[in-house]
Amino acid sequence: MRIVIALGGNAILRRGQPMTADNQRANIRSAAQSIATVAEGNQLVIAHGNGPQVGLLALQAASYHDVAPYPLDVLGAQTEAMIGYVIEQELGNVLPPEQPLATVLTMIEVDPADPAFANPTKPIGPVYDRQTADAMHAASGWTFAPDGEHFRRVIASPKPKRIFEIGPIRTLVEHGTMVICAGGGGIPTVYDGQGRLQGVEAVIDKDLASALLAEQLHADMLVIATDVDGVYTGWGTPDQRRLSRITPDELETMHFAAGSMGPKVEAACRFVRNTGRPASIGALGDIARIAAGQAGTRVAQSSEGSPPEERCCT
Amino acid sequence: MRIVIALGGNAILRRGQPMTADNQRANIRSAAQSIATVAEGNQLVIAHGNGPQVGLLALQAASYHDVAPYPLDVLGAQTEAMIGYVIEQELGNVLPPEQPLATVLTMIEVDPADPAFANPTKPIGPVYDRQTADAMHAASGWTFAPDGEHFRRVIASPKPKRIFEIGPIRTLVEHGTMVICAGGGGIPTVYDGQGRLQGVEAVIDKDLASALLAEQLHADMLVIATDVDGVYTGWGTPDQRRLSRITPDELETMHFAAGSMGPKVEAACRFVRNTGRPASIGALGDIARIAAGQAGTRVAQSSEGSPPEERCCT
Repeated sequence: MRIVIALGGNAILRRGQPMTADNQRANIRSAAQSIATVAEGNQLVIAHGNGPQVGLLALQAASYHDVAPYPLDVLGAQTEAMIGYVIEQELGNVLPPEQPLATVLTMIEVDPADPAFANPTKPIGPVYDRQTADAMHAASGWTFAPDGEHFRRVIASPKPKRIFEIGPIRTLVEHGTMVICAGGGGIPTVYDGQGRLQGVEAVIDKDLASALLAEQLHADMLVIATDVDGVYTGWGTPDQRRLSRITPDELETMHFAAGSMGPKVEAACRFVRNTGRPASIGALGDIARIAAGQAGTRVAQSSEGSPPEERCCT
Repeated sequence: MRIVIALGGNAILRRGQPMTADNQRANIRSAAQSIATVAEGNQLVIAHGNGPQVGLLALQAASYHDVAPYPLDVLGAQTEAMIGYVIEQELGNVLPPEQPLATVLTMIEVDPADPAFANPTKPIGPVYDRQTADAMHAASGWTFAPDGEHFRRVIASPKPKRIFEIGPIRTLVEHGTMVICAGGGGIPTVYDGQGRLQGVEAVIDKDLASALLAEQLHADMLVIATDVDGVYTGWGTPDQRRLSRITPDELETMHFAAGSMGPKVEAACRFVRNTGRPASIGALGDIARIAAGQAGTRVAQSSEGSPPEERCCT
């Protein structure tokens, strides 16, 4: 099977962990071990987020005063390599040496008229208390929004339209290379008024980018790997219940948190609707069972044939 | 023809220019226009340096105190995307839209016992006066060495041995993708005592990495593009004379500056010796004429057939 795996932020940096290189590497090492369990006999393509990392680079750039900070599209590009490099190296440490690996920088076209540009929602970087967030807003003009009890910088998150490198990525996959790409959701790129390519200061949601990638690669399956074992109804209530199998129509009647499960559900539904093939949301450690349809939440066109008790489990 | 083009630092940032994103983009735009003149009918692979940029990232990381700076291998990876992204985007602006482009992150094996680790020579980042360099050495332990009248941070520059992604790069080139790779000479990677892959704090010379790349891709030609129109004897003297055609044996009897023309000459000689195919050193703006053997200094196994007056010109 050809499987696109979207690695959640948690696979790279666990919530609350200091954003050190060592922590990232340790987490990615563990992620690579999970990925390796489905490597044999499958064509894998790995995508990943970059929210904490692009925020870190923006902070580092703002701390050094001899050179003006580079724009977010360039910093986003940097995170594709910063993270992709370690994923590639740690996969190289657990896969057979003859398995070719490549990290491909990915630019993704977005619409300059996307309404997201007027309404920044994507959190990047660390969390701050209100006072610090207010001071940073005053100093830099950065926009902050509440994140639980804290505040985090937010930037525009336009919808992905087209992956510029889809041809080369497909060529590599078809010739047996395991590809790491669409890191951080890809570098948001527009055609300006003169028809010239140009990066924009935004971050594309990595789940939506992964869905587009999976669709354009004709993947058999999209796996959105996160730190919970599936999609729940009534999350956080005594009635919470994991959905094991569900259709996009059923899923879209439910409500999920905008910043976390929401984009995953939207991405899974998009892939299933556009391709007729399944998408699963679940824990990275369960990936072999997810690929076999035995764990996570499988979103598929039809849930016919599955009796209700198999569709949902507690 | 399959041509590997190694872009000199000057193609990205001119000597003395502030290291801004805008300056880099403007220079790369101009470089892309030169590269486009040889795109038609040729398979091009583009490599580039990263000395100023990796130095900038190290300074930015050191300026932000909430997270310990990432090691140089990760910063080197970041520069592959920081620069590769802009090269890819600006090539996209001058090439036909149907030309596939891809930037491939490149890890290169080096020998952990390479003597370069005990003797750092590769300059990165900006130049400083002696007092500032001394203060930075005291604060960070960084090593500085004279660069003209100034001082620059220097790090180890081990020899490149093997390109991990050579298979995927070759696949892309054979299928018509113009590839940007081996940026900054590639990320120096070793096998540690346990046989695990691991990055090391070093920067590989981009000309030597480009020669290895050209060799392993079976390139018909290596072009080392710089800001002078060829290799000169007696450079800076009234007798300076550009060499138009020369053999590795002849070239290696001459002396060139360690930090600038030296590695270019070494890389060109290496490629020619190992492959029997020509390497040229010259100005990026002349690249079409260089590829046609009409400009630059062409290093080739035999200079037979060229009368002396055609071999050298003033």
